[in-house]
Amino acid sequence: MSDPAALSIAALGAGLRDKQISPVEAARACFARMAAQNDKVNAFVTPDEEGALAAARQAEAEIARGDYKGPLHGIPIAHKDLYCTKGLRSTAGSRLHENFVPDEDATVVARYRAAGTVLLGKLNTHEFAYGPTNEHSMFGPARNPWNPAHISGGSSGGSGAAVALGLCAGATGSDTGGSIRIPAACCGIVGLKPTYGRASRAGIFPLCWSMDHPGPLTRTVRDAAIMLQPIVGHDPRDAATVRRAAPDYLAALDDGVAGLRLGVPSRYFYDRSDEQVEAAVRAALAALAEQGAVIEEVDIAHIEHAAAAALAIYLAEAIAYHDDRIGPDGHLYTDQVRGFLELGNYVLAKDYLHAQRYRTLLGQSMAAVFERVDFLLTPTLPIAATEIGQDSIEVRGVAQTPFAALLRNTEPFDLTGLPALVVPCGFSDAGLPISLQIVGRPFDEAGVLRVGQAYQAATDWHERRPAL
Amino acid sequence: MSDPAALSIAALGAGLRDKQISPVEAARACFARMAAQNDKVNAFVTPDEEGALAAARQAEAEIARGDYKGPLHGIPIAHKDLYCTKGLRSTAGSRLHENFVPDEDATVVARYRAAGTVLLGKLNTHEFAYGPTNEHSMFGPARNPWNPAHISGGSSGGSGAAVALGLCAGATGSDTGGSIRIPAACCGIVGLKPTYGRASRAGIFPLCWSMDHPGPLTRTVRDAAIMLQPIVGHDPRDAATVRRAAPDYLAALDDGVAGLRLGVPSRYFYDRSDEQVEAAVRAALAALAEQGAVIEEVDIAHIEHAAAAALAIYLAEAIAYHDDRIGPDGHLYTDQVRGFLELGNYVLAKDYLHAQRYRTLLGQSMAAVFERVDFLLTPTLPIAATEIGQDSIEVRGVAQTPFAALLRNTEPFDLTGLPALVVPCGFSDAGLPISLQIVGRPFDEAGVLRVGQAYQAATDWHERRPAL
Repeated sequence: MSDPAALSIAALGAGLRDKQISPVEAARACFARMAAQNDKVNAFVTPDEEGALAAARQAEAEIARGDYKGPLHGIPIAHKDLYCTKGLRSTAGSRLHENFVPDEDATVVARYRAAGTVLLGKLNTHEFAYGPTNEHSMFGPARNPWNPAHISGGSSGGSGAAVALGLCAGATGSDTGGSIRIPAACCGIVGLKPTYGRASRAGIFPLCWSMDHPGPLTRTVRDAAIMLQPIVGHDPRDAATVRRAAPDYLAALDDGVAGLRLGVPSRYFYDRSDEQVEAAVRAALAALAEQGAVIEEVDIAHIEHAAAAALAIYLAEAIAYHDDRIGPDGHLYTDQVRGFLELGNYVLAKDYLHAQRYRTLLGQSMAAVFERVDFLLTPTLPIAATEIGQDSIEVRGVAQTPFAALLRNTEPFDLTGLPALVVPCGFSDAGLPISLQIVGRPFDEAGVLRVGQAYQAATDWHERRPAL
Repeated sequence: MSDPAALSIAALGAGLRDKQISPVEAARACFARMAAQNDKVNAFVTPDEEGALAAARQAEAEIARGDYKGPLHGIPIAHKDLYCTKGLRSTAGSRLHENFVPDEDATVVARYRAAGTVLLGKLNTHEFAYGPTNEHSMFGPARNPWNPAHISGGSSGGSGAAVALGLCAGATGSDTGGSIRIPAACCGIVGLKPTYGRASRAGIFPLCWSMDHPGPLTRTVRDAAIMLQPIVGHDPRDAATVRRAAPDYLAALDDGVAGLRLGVPSRYFYDRSDEQVEAAVRAALAALAEQGAVIEEVDIAHIEHAAAAALAIYLAEAIAYHDDRIGPDGHLYTDQVRGFLELGNYVLAKDYLHAQRYRTLLGQSMAAVFERVDFLLTPTLPIAATEIGQDSIEVRGVAQTPFAALLRNTEPFDLTGLPALVVPCGFSDAGLPISLQIVGRPFDEAGVLRVGQAYQAATDWHERRPAL
């Protein structure tokens, strides 16, 4: 019998369903890995072995008596520490909430419990999710499982590292500028940001409510589909969630890409990509073309202003949330995050409104592109994971902050709320993962999963695992 | 045969339908009044006698041949100059658009044309609709038909004066802080602000897009119902409009108020009302109670912050719209409106966001009240129309600007988007009108019309007309 912690959710779920593997055994395998490896990556910040084993025993009993809840029953998962978990410390990576134990679950947490998952504990995050590098947390940085001197990507950096190493089978993240997709890309795994409004943010600490999205990080595309299923749908606790039926995300997963039109933006996404990233992504496009996809060059009008608009919106909404707290409790914030928050004090309302109006314009540009193509494909990041503490990176002769470089390709799709899946598509010469981003029309999560699955089925990048 | 210009839309419409009156005769009667009285009130700024008579002749021919379009066919109306009218100068009260002739109608204008109305011309408005006093326009102030030294109320002040004097049978206005209801109240007529999203703003110059509402001003409640009917419904040109079926607004109009629960706020709305206003409104409530309505005291939590929130939102959204224009063309604005606009440069994004979040809170407070009662009744204005140029008014010992006093009772319902009807309910000792405001649940325009009609049927305030 192979190590249950090495299995995908799909494979482990089949074993659990068929009683070949016990949920208790699966959870113990994860804790065994955690004991060996967590210190190297600092992914789990609040493990809950006792709670997990109780839940695993309950799942075991339920499955044994024929009360099988479906493909997540007995699966060991963990949540980004931005999610409130009833009875389990939920810090948002901040000393402000160092001892906060919620008395209610986030909606997504509750839905995963109802699906029979086993909650192993909480995962490191950048303080209040405010940053793509995941360097600033009351617990110190999560580290990259492929090279611990590098970032695991943020703000769901603990989730990326834990899933990549098999410390859990899947994890949650949240994505405001890229915080699901960036750590998935840095750690060589799959991350899915569903459409804005598809899944509830209730009980997740907000960063920027008009751009915050929850979603899963997994090792395979199929696992992302399985983890998406229970969390979609309207939630009265999150006014942004839509009343819209969701499909079975596995139904068309293996339908392939023959005849699908894949749009490749001619500019912006590659302008600051390093050559190894560009080569890996172009190779991925070629692999999809070989399966019958039609590749078309497209241009997204106005996209060059995305970073400025996103920044005005983050800064403004974040300080609107933190305003009452940062006065009395400013000393409990790290300097970096307090610095970002205080910048928000200088954003003018008119600039915020210009940024929001720009979002409408950008959405119209993307809608126009989606009349010609079915999906957009881009590099997830223009670069591989930077070093922890690195404050500048030069790509194609342009010096940038890691902050700007990491967000460049992901944040346009937070502004427009489109569903975006990222899958590993190669490695840099330094052995760090490279990632492909697949973006779909509003609410076409099934579509981006289908394209991702077609790519993954033809490659083996997702099977390579870091060995710490 | 009485003067067609003195008739309500309902009475005139019956005469037109039955061919007792010709649309041409009706339009001529309005122009005759205009010739005699418009100079005293400065209501019409761009009359269009030629266009009106052509439209009237067309309506006459259509009705003659049996092609009757309904209760607005042949009715002479006019539009606030904020509305774009194809081929007819549309200035928004600003020198910036002194010679602007649109090549497309506002959606509401087009719908009234399709309903067979006869457009007499355009009505004076405060520059860009920015102010409740209607003193600042490239055409000078519209004046109160009951006393030309006083304001007609703004920003739809031309509409209020014209309808009160019978220069047209009905008119359009737009309401951001009260700009339909304030002039209706000042001029002793009926004004209806429908629910936010009920009618399209496409082709109307924006002031503050999250609070702008179009709607009619008329002499009777029944006329308001008739004028509301064609303009409700989704419009692809205004993303805020809802897809929601509209009832026949005449169907339940005469059903009375027996058993309806009318909520009377215990504070805020009377705190700064002068005694004559309070007495007239209390008498109106007693008249409704006599018809079987149940009067209940209620309190709207947090309402005391409405003015501050509304101000942050007007200032921010208005400068976001005017930003690009005020730089090169600042000299074309009046000092007062440029002053307001430039204040918007100092509103912080976080304050705008706090104000928007407050709106949600205020909406929840109102929703809680609407679980106990069916309608809210308040004075429309705490005071009667102020003098033109007056810069301070003292009520119950508190000195205020007319700006603040006039907006106090109306703007909470722009913030929350609820439908609000105002009807005349008395006169001050100085002979100026006093007005009752009836507010309903979202999309219950039929309800506020029903309550207004019950009140109007039991009184004769609406039959008194100014004699200039």
